[in-house]
Amino acid sequence: MQQKLNIVPFVSVQNMMKLVLATGVERFLTDLAGYIEEDFRRWEMFNKAPRVASHSADGVIELMPTSDGETYGFKYVNGHPKNTRSGRQTVTAFGVLADVGNGYPILLTEMTILTALRTAAMSAVAAKYLAPKGARTMAMIGNGAQSEFQAIAFKAILGVDRLRLYDIDSSATRRCVNNVAGMGFDVTACASSQEAVEGAEIVTTVTADKQYAKILTDNMVGPGIHINAIGGDCPGKTELHRDILLRSDIFVEYKPQTRIEGEIQQIDPDHPVIELWQVIAGKAPGRTDERQITLFDSVGFAIEDFSALRYVRDQLRETGLYEELDLLADPDEPRDLFGMILRAAKPAAVMQQTGA
Amino acid sequence: MQQKLNIVPFVSVQNMMKLVLATGVERFLTDLAGYIEEDFRRWEMFNKAPRVASHSADGVIELMPTSDGETYGFKYVNGHPKNTRSGRQTVTAFGVLADVGNGYPILLTEMTILTALRTAAMSAVAAKYLAPKGARTMAMIGNGAQSEFQAIAFKAILGVDRLRLYDIDSSATRRCVNNVAGMGFDVTACASSQEAVEGAEIVTTVTADKQYAKILTDNMVGPGIHINAIGGDCPGKTELHRDILLRSDIFVEYKPQTRIEGEIQQIDPDHPVIELWQVIAGKAPGRTDERQITLFDSVGFAIEDFSALRYVRDQLRETGLYEELDLLADPDEPRDLFGMILRAAKPAAVMQQTGA
Repeated sequence: MQQKLNIVPFVSVQNMMKLVLATGVERFLTDLAGYIEEDFRRWEMFNKAPRVASHSADGVIELMPTSDGETYGFKYVNGHPKNTRSGRQTVTAFGVLADVGNGYPILLTEMTILTALRTAAMSAVAAKYLAPKGARTMAMIGNGAQSEFQAIAFKAILGVDRLRLYDIDSSATRRCVNNVAGMGFDVTACASSQEAVEGAEIVTTVTADKQYAKILTDNMVGPGIHINAIGGDCPGKTELHRDILLRSDIFVEYKPQTRIEGEIQQIDPDHPVIELWQVIAGKAPGRTDERQITLFDSVGFAIEDFSALRYVRDQLRETGLYEELDLLADPDEPRDLFGMILRAAKPAAVMQQTGA
Repeated sequence: MQQKLNIVPFVSVQNMMKLVLATGVERFLTDLAGYIEEDFRRWEMFNKAPRVASHSADGVIELMPTSDGETYGFKYVNGHPKNTRSGRQTVTAFGVLADVGNGYPILLTEMTILTALRTAAMSAVAAKYLAPKGARTMAMIGNGAQSEFQAIAFKAILGVDRLRLYDIDSSATRRCVNNVAGMGFDVTACASSQEAVEGAEIVTTVTADKQYAKILTDNMVGPGIHINAIGGDCPGKTELHRDILLRSDIFVEYKPQTRIEGEIQQIDPDHPVIELWQVIAGKAPGRTDERQITLFDSVGFAIEDFSALRYVRDQLRETGLYEELDLLADPDEPRDLFGMILRAAKPAAVMQQTGA
């Protein structure tokens, strides 16, 4: 990838969209899910740090680093709920991969779109191990920017082809319905979350309000359901009634982070939960009986972004969908950084500019 | 700066060199020093986190975030001593500024060159408050990539115009001598560090070996000297004999970090040290008498990078020395990220690619 030491491949938003379209959304999500499963299987190899958050009145800016010992990756991501008022995204992100051996970055990419894709792929991977076998119907409560990605991931990876949609903002539901039209779904727009969950084997909650919400109440959750809880992802932001947690077998990405950010912030810190990687690695059971309620309490973890960065990096050579960024100083003589600057100018100019 | 919401201004290595040359190295360092002093005066406003390090056998990759409540900044920086063997830099870096209010990045820039400049500017700022008045002679032990920047910063900001250079690698000294030729210095290449410190009012140690070194021994340090210790900057990497620390008044950037990374890792954790910002803000004395030995135990702190990022950002509009990076997804409708991808393709193509 790097002929020149100063160059870092950069994937712009335009190139990311081209990559998704050239690959096909379903295949992109399926391949990405494969990378996530691969990394979750080798979970113990990763250097796992909690994300580094800088909180302010209007939102949060986070850095999410991790490393498998050979490659280092981090994501910059913000969360600012009020941004939509100014025509901005609530969440934007970009990410970097680097070579642990020499510390040089090897990829810079937009991750706003990529995070939406990896979040959906992650949900589908969890459901693959936790949802009732042969599930075809998913209720989706919250039909915002993440909803179509969730729908397509569940179709591509689990064969879910019946959607029951509800959002307090019916225009969001209409948008989602229009966007997935012609993709092979049987879609029902519902008038309430109660109606949405009727007959659903999988319930995805993906709402945005920052509060202790009760998107799902206990009576709405029947036996055998898999709950894919995406929206509750920071302190003070949850979606499920506490009683549901107490009836469910709870699966999380990374306990130390989910205790703070996930649905389980509502319950006793000692309440048993299973880290999903253990199920994928065959160290813990997933769904064991058909009446069991399984809950994937998803908050998003750095290793998922690492998988997404790896996947994008592996597509570059073949697709060529990147630009070359002149990001790293590469002096002719490594210890002569200043000389590189001098030689970038006409000698005469330097003298004058350095005041000699 | 940002007409378009998807665009982040990017300063490449080429543009950074052009900016340095167009500004003039001395003026760049002087202006940058002004930004550092300004931020050190308002030190208490900053959100100060220790840097987030990922260590490996060959080196370290660090993220250094900070925020003043309005603007957030972070630097990615690696340290890999063996890199020179493969023609790479020991240290490379890039940095980002973002708007705390909406979390959107507002600048991405190379920081390998910029870090070299801010390190030199920081040293000169410290010396301005700590070195003996009217000091004109500086010994510099270690003549690597940082040395010319140090020399020029001390000349521009303190009027130091006599250099006494020593490096175990005489070719490094020769390179430094050649690079500063014609810039108004009286330069003496010395055969030993003992010879280098003779008659010097300021002693800068800027060596690279990762070990507990003794670049300066107690007998080499006379009364009234200011020591600018740059090279000792991580656990297990120091340059000064312990006895020198016990005779000196010690000034540091940020105690919690310097205790781990600086020269003071050699002495009692309770040994008194002064944070430099207190001197600059007038809350603590700097040099109080002419026989006093002052030591700036410098390791580099996130706020200095923040100052450098602010300075570069403030030059962009006037100089135009940046590129526009398509880094942030900006859908026509903020909640319709997926629709943005759909509309990036011909409808027909989408159907097929999404498997419908």
